[in-house]
Amino acid sequence: MYIMSNPELGLASMYRVIKKSGADRVSEDAADELRKVLEAVAEKIARQAVELSIHAGRKTVKSEDVHLASKNILNL
Amino acid sequence: MYIMSNPELGLASMYRVIKKSGADRVSEDAADELRKVLEAVAEKIARQAVELSIHAGRKTVKSEDVHLASKNILNL
Repeated sequence: MYIMSNPELGLASMYRVIKKSGADRVSEDAADELRKVLEAVAEKIARQAVELSIHAGRKTVKSEDVHLASKNILNL
Repeated sequence: MYIMSNPELGLASMYRVIKKSGADRVSEDAADELRKVLEAVAEKIARQAVELSIHAGRKTVKSEDVHLASKNILNL
């Protein structure tokens, strides 16, 4: 998967998500791995959402574009 | 999908990801939709990563747990 050059998601957020999910301890590498995965997923969804907005004749990406792109990307 | 009660991901980050992916304009609802989807994915991955760390006899969630959980959740 393609990884964004400038990460948008914070490492501290990733750490908290894993802690909230029941972890006693979380390695720094684990938080970084979650960040990489989520950024890649975010970018795939965003790219398809942009395509879908253009396909619908719009210049604004709307929630319905993100919703449909998410369904497609995540096989829901 | 289950949505976290306290969002960990920032709306501004979601907005930037969609803009970077080529959007002219992004509605606020679109950024919020991306946040909801990513939080749900993050939580699913994190929960499985915690299970995998316990399964491996550890109390620390490591990157290998997040990596395997991501593969399973995202069907990679």
